[in-house]
Amino acid sequence: MKQIVLSLLVDNNPGVLTRVAGLFSRRGYNIDSITAGVTNDPKYTRITVAVSGDDQILEQIRNQIAKLVEVRKIVELENKESVCRELVLVKVMADKKEKQDIIAIADVFRAKIVDVSSNSVMIELTGNQNKLDAFLNLMSDFEVLEMVRTGITGLGRGIHTTLS
Amino acid sequence: MKQIVLSLLVDNNPGVLTRVAGLFSRRGYNIDSITAGVTNDPKYTRITVAVSGDDQILEQIRNQIAKLVEVRKIVELENKESVCRELVLVKVMADKKEKQDIIAIADVFRAKIVDVSSNSVMIELTGNQNKLDAFLNLMSDFEVLEMVRTGITGLGRGIHTTLS
Repeated sequence: MKQIVLSLLVDNNPGVLTRVAGLFSRRGYNIDSITAGVTNDPKYTRITVAVSGDDQILEQIRNQIAKLVEVRKIVELENKESVCRELVLVKVMADKKEKQDIIAIADVFRAKIVDVSSNSVMIELTGNQNKLDAFLNLMSDFEVLEMVRTGITGLGRGIHTTLS
Repeated sequence: MKQIVLSLLVDNNPGVLTRVAGLFSRRGYNIDSITAGVTNDPKYTRITVAVSGDDQILEQIRNQIAKLVEVRKIVELENKESVCRELVLVKVMADKKEKQDIIAIADVFRAKIVDVSSNSVMIELTGNQNKLDAFLNLMSDFEVLEMVRTGITGLGRGIHTTLS
């Protein structure tokens, strides 16, 4: 099983996300993460999908997506040639002593403290999946109240525009 | 027209994202952004949807979503009581002089330079929508090659867990 990250440039209309998501669910593929947001051209939306499978399944997925008329372009964001990032917000129970420990860890990861209450802190961190996983692993020593991840998004490196 | 941000805790299975997205498209509502990613409990996925409409439409949407069996909990992330964040990656054409200008702007916004080539830079920024819009507005003075946004994600402030 490997994971691929696909970046799709699609028409910005109500049905397109359903059709993309539907394509995965009809075949029983589960999406690891999905993000969708407008681009600098409001006519288009960019959908970034992370999905796991073996080579054959991933090839099938690519071909099926390419058939959707609203999908203008489809690119695989490969590790070496792209920058992939994800954002996570984690809320952790913390007394005075634990807050210090958490803030020290957050500093190492260049994470931001975005909310503090008398017995909790909320931390914002961005990075690639390995960095996020390492941070969340350390946070599991504390009592994690809740957590939310945006899912992976990314762009190709250098001047080439992967989509546009 | 106002925008609401809904945070949904849903079962982590292949069909659920399709059903949530389908609910919007069947009624012709357009989603401003959607993010979906696993939570600390792998049984569940958290979907954060930003959607615009008048009060009546937004009420309809809330009610319809609540009817889906896979949706375990639905919470509106209100401005004052939650931290909402989004991540954007922007790639901009830049010669030597323009790079300095862009780096100066990035510093003010505490953005990170994540890639540099001989004639382009890629910047990573996180923040609320206003901050991102202000930054992207400044970037539009340069030649933006491509841009990708994760869509909004968020958690309620303080110790209360909105979902779980």
